[in-house]
Amino acid sequence: MTLAVKHLSFNSGNKHILNNVNLEFEPGTIYGLLGRNGAGKSTLLNLISDRYPEKQGAVTIDGHTVHDHDAQLQQMYLMSEVNLYPDNFRVTKLFKLTQQLYGEFNWDLALRLAKQFGLETHARFGKLSTGYRTICKDIIALSVPADYILLDEPVLGLDANHRELFYQELMNAQAERPRTFVIATHLIEEVSWLLNHVMVLVDGHIKVDETLADLTEQAWQLTGPKEVMEPFINQQAVLHQHQFGNDITAVMMIAVADIPAEVTKQKINLQELFVALTEETHEN
Amino acid sequence: MTLAVKHLSFNSGNKHILNNVNLEFEPGTIYGLLGRNGAGKSTLLNLISDRYPEKQGAVTIDGHTVHDHDAQLQQMYLMSEVNLYPDNFRVTKLFKLTQQLYGEFNWDLALRLAKQFGLETHARFGKLSTGYRTICKDIIALSVPADYILLDEPVLGLDANHRELFYQELMNAQAERPRTFVIATHLIEEVSWLLNHVMVLVDGHIKVDETLADLTEQAWQLTGPKEVMEPFINQQAVLHQHQFGNDITAVMMIAVADIPAEVTKQKINLQELFVALTEETHEN
Repeated sequence: MTLAVKHLSFNSGNKHILNNVNLEFEPGTIYGLLGRNGAGKSTLLNLISDRYPEKQGAVTIDGHTVHDHDAQLQQMYLMSEVNLYPDNFRVTKLFKLTQQLYGEFNWDLALRLAKQFGLETHARFGKLSTGYRTICKDIIALSVPADYILLDEPVLGLDANHRELFYQELMNAQAERPRTFVIATHLIEEVSWLLNHVMVLVDGHIKVDETLADLTEQAWQLTGPKEVMEPFINQQAVLHQHQFGNDITAVMMIAVADIPAEVTKQKINLQELFVALTEETHEN
Repeated sequence: MTLAVKHLSFNSGNKHILNNVNLEFEPGTIYGLLGRNGAGKSTLLNLISDRYPEKQGAVTIDGHTVHDHDAQLQQMYLMSEVNLYPDNFRVTKLFKLTQQLYGEFNWDLALRLAKQFGLETHARFGKLSTGYRTICKDIIALSVPADYILLDEPVLGLDANHRELFYQELMNAQAERPRTFVIATHLIEEVSWLLNHVMVLVDGHIKVDETLADLTEQAWQLTGPKEVMEPFINQQAVLHQHQFGNDITAVMMIAVADIPAEVTKQKINLQELFVALTEETHEN
């Protein structure tokens, strides 16, 4: 079972928010969806779960479009920054509502997590702090029976202990019933150990779509004189490049065996890769 | 000019949210207000700025109560998680509205910051992402003429580059016109270099109220046999304490000269201090 995004584009007014995005999400895999503020992460997650109808391109599960198709949409759950829940509903009522919409709900897990996070289940959603609203939505996201769980900023407003607890419980949930998670977050270093696969959005384009294993093994920052680097990097998918005097520095995916001996090479971790990819090119 | 909080308590239903809080905020000082989710940080900031009228205790500026007093309230600005702004207002209209309410507004700064953060000033507030709503509110907070700026989660939803830019611009603003900032945040390590003074809320009580200089110099984690530690730590303000077998470990504020030679001492930074103070005591 695969969730596929094909040639997806989206404009708001005369502004291109997403531009020809193509992605596949495999079962049992945890994806990190990374990008700067305004890169289009939330728009992409909203489009995938059919919340914005006016789009170009398609979103399918096993070849069937999700657009207006309840059977496909029921396989997905989007935990988003937007609070869709009525403010006067109590937490338990939100759990019941989710059960009605999705047919099932893991009450044991939800009530255990509520206790662990200190979420009062009789509290009204509208009375919760930002952190506890996030916690409430996270608990629902881990307790729905859907196979594709899209998490837009799942640690927004959470303190360090609660963030750690959430990451741990997500891994527990995944071990118990493997599903697909897509996590959009700005706390990259914290989350990187969870991820199987990384996607980076830059200005509405997908710039990186790689397994974490490939990134760990093949993401290098290479520096060398222009005459050595230039013919060499033109043959490769360069993620980022800049020049100081006669030296070129390039961030790229490459097998270590293919790096010429006269080039200085340095491993680059996910956070560093992200910074290199999203460096401001305009003046501030 | 001093902002003082005296014997402040607040209940919600039959739950004590804040319990006899006493604090003073001095001019030109940057305070960090730290605490777990649900500790009462937002409630405290809302009470200080008179948004919740039903409270016990008092909030004063130079001895004059702020309650229902516009002259005092105009010296304060609360940037909060709650979006008070009408969704259909454009960013520039929010700037104008703030100018009307506060008499002045630093347009040069606000427009420069909007450009640097990539905030579109003609966008409607309701159409902004979580990150850009925070950015919009931060820009207003840095541009109002008030002397007490209360920031409730000023980096909520901001990417790493934008967080760094915000911290830097806050320091620039402070250098240009010193004022009092109170920053409530969960990203303690990132923010600690900004702070002059730290307050830690634990379950509605103030557990730490110290200058960063004192914390840096005097916060120690001490370990030793019970018979050495017990008489000694009873004389001091212990922040946290636990026992393994015959050994006691205590986190406390103490001059290094006052630590007995037979005690093992270890410096503790702000993040470690916070973790020690807020460790769960109940079972999970």
